[in-house]
Amino acid sequence: MPTPVSVQAGSGQLPITQSFSVAVTGTHDTSLDSEVQRFQSQISRQTGIPFRPKPGAAATLQIHADHGRQAVQKLGEDESYELTVADSGAKLTAPTSLGVIRGLQTFLQLVQITSAGFAVPAVAIKDQPRFPWRGTMIDVSRHFIPIDVLKRNLDGMAAVKMNVLHWHLSDDQGFRAESKIFPKLTGMGSDGMFYTQAEIRDLIAYAHDRGIRVIPEFDIPGHSRSWFLGYPELSSGSGPYALEGGNRSTYIDPIMDPTRESTYKFLEKFIAEMAKLFPDAYFHIGGDEVDGKQWDANPQIQAFIHAHGMKNNQDLQAYFNQRLQKILAKNHKIMLGWDEILHPDLPKTIIVQSWRGQKTLADAAKQGYSGLLSFGYYLDLMWPAAKHYAVEPMSGEAANLTPEEQKRILGGESCQWAEWVTPENIDSHIWPRNASIAERLWSPQNVTDVNSMYARMNAVSLDLEFLGLTHRSARMHMLHRMAGTADITALRVLADVVEPVKDYNRWSDEKGPIDFHAPLTRMIDAVYPESDVARKFGSLVQIFVQSGYKDQAAEAQIRSWLIVWRDNDAKLQPLLGQTFLLQEDVPLSQNLSALGAAGLQALDYLDKSQPAPDSWRIQQLALMDRAKARQADMLLMVVVPVQQLVEDSAAQHN
Amino acid sequence: MPTPVSVQAGSGQLPITQSFSVAVTGTHDTSLDSEVQRFQSQISRQTGIPFRPKPGAAATLQIHADHGRQAVQKLGEDESYELTVADSGAKLTAPTSLGVIRGLQTFLQLVQITSAGFAVPAVAIKDQPRFPWRGTMIDVSRHFIPIDVLKRNLDGMAAVKMNVLHWHLSDDQGFRAESKIFPKLTGMGSDGMFYTQAEIRDLIAYAHDRGIRVIPEFDIPGHSRSWFLGYPELSSGSGPYALEGGNRSTYIDPIMDPTRESTYKFLEKFIAEMAKLFPDAYFHIGGDEVDGKQWDANPQIQAFIHAHGMKNNQDLQAYFNQRLQKILAKNHKIMLGWDEILHPDLPKTIIVQSWRGQKTLADAAKQGYSGLLSFGYYLDLMWPAAKHYAVEPMSGEAANLTPEEQKRILGGESCQWAEWVTPENIDSHIWPRNASIAERLWSPQNVTDVNSMYARMNAVSLDLEFLGLTHRSARMHMLHRMAGTADITALRVLADVVEPVKDYNRWSDEKGPIDFHAPLTRMIDAVYPESDVARKFGSLVQIFVQSGYKDQAAEAQIRSWLIVWRDNDAKLQPLLGQTFLLQEDVPLSQNLSALGAAGLQALDYLDKSQPAPDSWRIQQLALMDRAKARQADMLLMVVVPVQQLVEDSAAQHN
Repeated sequence: MPTPVSVQAGSGQLPITQSFSVAVTGTHDTSLDSEVQRFQSQISRQTGIPFRPKPGAAATLQIHADHGRQAVQKLGEDESYELTVADSGAKLTAPTSLGVIRGLQTFLQLVQITSAGFAVPAVAIKDQPRFPWRGTMIDVSRHFIPIDVLKRNLDGMAAVKMNVLHWHLSDDQGFRAESKIFPKLTGMGSDGMFYTQAEIRDLIAYAHDRGIRVIPEFDIPGHSRSWFLGYPELSSGSGPYALEGGNRSTYIDPIMDPTRESTYKFLEKFIAEMAKLFPDAYFHIGGDEVDGKQWDANPQIQAFIHAHGMKNNQDLQAYFNQRLQKILAKNHKIMLGWDEILHPDLPKTIIVQSWRGQKTLADAAKQGYSGLLSFGYYLDLMWPAAKHYAVEPMSGEAANLTPEEQKRILGGESCQWAEWVTPENIDSHIWPRNASIAERLWSPQNVTDVNSMYARMNAVSLDLEFLGLTHRSARMHMLHRMAGTADITALRVLADVVEPVKDYNRWSDEKGPIDFHAPLTRMIDAVYPESDVARKFGSLVQIFVQSGYKDQAAEAQIRSWLIVWRDNDAKLQPLLGQTFLLQEDVPLSQNLSALGAAGLQALDYLDKSQPAPDSWRIQQLALMDRAKARQADMLLMVVVPVQQLVEDSAAQHN
Repeated sequence: MPTPVSVQAGSGQLPITQSFSVAVTGTHDTSLDSEVQRFQSQISRQTGIPFRPKPGAAATLQIHADHGRQAVQKLGEDESYELTVADSGAKLTAPTSLGVIRGLQTFLQLVQITSAGFAVPAVAIKDQPRFPWRGTMIDVSRHFIPIDVLKRNLDGMAAVKMNVLHWHLSDDQGFRAESKIFPKLTGMGSDGMFYTQAEIRDLIAYAHDRGIRVIPEFDIPGHSRSWFLGYPELSSGSGPYALEGGNRSTYIDPIMDPTRESTYKFLEKFIAEMAKLFPDAYFHIGGDEVDGKQWDANPQIQAFIHAHGMKNNQDLQAYFNQRLQKILAKNHKIMLGWDEILHPDLPKTIIVQSWRGQKTLADAAKQGYSGLLSFGYYLDLMWPAAKHYAVEPMSGEAANLTPEEQKRILGGESCQWAEWVTPENIDSHIWPRNASIAERLWSPQNVTDVNSMYARMNAVSLDLEFLGLTHRSARMHMLHRMAGTADITALRVLADVVEPVKDYNRWSDEKGPIDFHAPLTRMIDAVYPESDVARKFGSLVQIFVQSGYKDQAAEAQIRSWLIVWRDNDAKLQPLLGQTFLLQEDVPLSQNLSALGAAGLQALDYLDKSQPAPDSWRIQQLALMDRAKARQADMLLMVVVPVQQLVEDSAAQHN
């Protein structure tokens, strides 16, 4: 995963034993050598085999790259490779060593345990990405994410062949990149947690080794409150500003003042400094959600708008962006921004990143602009992987573009906004679902089988834990903390069938401001965004229903789940009462047990081909309604299939 | 854990909230400051609370140390502390900042989750160690253990107040410490995996920060094959030598030649170099299991023995040790060695570490020598924690010593020999059992309640995972690898009730040499040395039996376990057949299911107060015999209690 362009299965398999070895011919560079070393240590971690190649023996895997890589990875740099595995050995060839990096990840995923040992099945693969830009955006402003956590996520991205880390380094809640020229940006604009320039350089090198570009984003003129703590003169309002507090509806008011020349003097120095720090050709200036209230309220700004013949705040932002673009161009950077920067006065080289939908991409492409899709790839919305997977960049308005225009759609990026993640749980918010987006952006458009995607994603998910990602193990730690005890069997049963509420429903303005320094230690913070158990249970019920309630194997499995759930509350209640972190989950556990009992009764009616009484049905459906309601900001994900059993049991004719 | 000397429970509790803060008065040093910082980050990891102390508010925890620490930690340096917790705040005082380090670990363990939040119960504690030397020996020769793995184990040791890492750096299978004077020691005497001097210094500093001394061991004149690959002139035989191969019985033959002056010239330079690298006052020279065969076979050595009026090889080793001791003294080091070095010609300052038993300790103490106990603390023997816990340094021959002589028993060390551990599974071989030994060495002699020990050890075990130890999570990874799939529920049921074979029964000379580079990826390598489930099941059966088969709650729990086991093989068999790493476990799984069925039948007979038929009993006992036999180098740990149910069901009178 992602599925290669062309896969031809061969016969036989290549055993992976202690004598496994790798030889590199053709171009050598240090990046390739360290990639090979990482590959060997990763395959060793996965299989548990400490390799001891036989001296003089032919290498198991031969690697050949025609050319090396660019010192700074370029957009569109060749990532193609060919991998041939036979029972006698394997060969990986690529035009560039970047292609080798991609091909080695394919090889790693092919390593399987068999009844005879570890092996890679014989296969001939030709592969190249569909889109040249396949990224993950990580917001480190709202919650700071340390370098080591970013590094393991880069490992994960490399495993699924993503090639861009979009680093959202500043926002209202914190400025996270050290500026030596303007030290108050982090000094006053953060809670003390930020990346030094040395750490930034280290992360960029780490990403480069893995074939990943790093694009910084400094979001202006909106989402820039953190700048104004140290440098209030940049703002359009009067301040004073604080990092804490305020509802979302009023929080994003403070924006930069684009009418003062001093603002551009500041940005010239700042961008020159950052342009040196970040070697990539692209530079993200944000530009989203510019709330015009401060501009409306500032007479000088309004006067400026009129004096320059502008119609509205959008024109003012376009003016700001033009000035910015010139500063970036002087520093040899290409501008990248969110939907709102799209404006005919900007040069065609800029890239528009769409959080609003394929329409923006299509509009941009028609006007000659390049674009990236992020709409539909927001990991913080807590969608199931299948829903992300179904989001196709070339669909909707983009489907009707000419081939020339379509080429301007460069790919996309998943986005992990950080309102509700900490270093402890961010991995499980990104993984394994990010792999489904990676596949959408790498594999051919016709690769759309959801069941196949889930099967492969679950396999990748295990591999990722061997890379050091904690998307599975962190849940265990967090459940232990909540329970305060070693035996979390019953708690896990409950955690397995719930999901966080979807979209942005966790919070509302009525709840007051989000406290970005509050602990995130509730069950909603520990559970996976997508419940595997619920998905599988739903499929089982579908199979059972479609068999006309005849499939006994399916029914037995359904029954065994329902029994576990029915009996779980009695085991769990004593624990839930003991700890403050679990008390809010009491109704959730009760509902799950009631659901289990209802489902079992429904099965009994179906088994006897006896319609369930209407009074019972009405009672059960009332339970379903209760169970569907959000509890402790979570949803019980097995209500719908149990409800189907209940309704079917009442509707059947004997 | 370890239990303090004096604990007086108060009333109320101190809430641990976001505003938790620490203030240090009295002596400040960098080591104490970094300890406080680590403490805060650890309490934050455990509770998930990012602390934000209120400016100006009184500190929640006040710390006062009268004095700082020695630059190089001394044996017997004051580790005592007093900790008072009230609902309004806590106070930790200690004569030295080393005592503060110990007291902070106690505070950490007191943090509990309650129905109202995290809190520390009100308490007054006075504490100090029973023995001044409480160590863990880690063998890094047979399997190399990287620095980061050692560091997390040092964190674990600090958590249970151990204060010595005994670093077994050389043995027949590998020399692991860089010598700049003799680079061939690691260059030829290792597989390329060793610690640089910079890494060693880094680890020593890391240990010092945690109040842990680091004692190097270079084992001579035996166990020294790895020296001879690069420097064959040191050996008593003719070589050539290799790191690989050879049965244990012949493997340890090569020993150093104590008759040549060139040997001492070499050791003088080597020890001078290492004495500078390792600041501790003690230096371990091994001295164990000196196999005399090479000395017997070498006419020059025999001539030397006669010429110097020695009676035997033991005298020759004593001569060697005297020479060594002089070299060490010149380098301001005190000699430490295993039992065999005990010899009246050596000065009373040396320390004898006993792997043979309390008798050696008693003998040494009577002669005026100090000693450490390691007999009974060998973690690689796969004993249950209770068995280690019962090993009392002052028992046996040592119990009859005078008070003066008893003072010479300085403490003890657990030992993790590395035949069967890798960086992946070493944590689970050391932890949590090491905590029981730590308690034996710290707490008063009368602290011996096994049930209390297990309850506290299990709590500590969870805390240790928050420190980064992988003694629990690694098993999950390894089971996933073996299964090649995400669903390991049934595999875990089996893994939960087995243990590795005990003592040194995993291997025998008939099996040929141990391949120290073979993968350690079988189920025996993944499972815990002690099965918690089996222990609890055994207790349940005891309760049930003692109740005259009347305790229904116990019976219900017993039944539910037996049902899980009976039904498990059907779920597990398909998986076991698929992967080569699980095939050997087929009989184990079958036996577990048969045991489950037998136990359930026995309960049925007991419920009906109907004696089980003799034919049935005989058949079941045959099954028990099969199930007791070792399978895939493991033991099924629930046979004994099930057998008791079977026998009781047959023996009962109605």
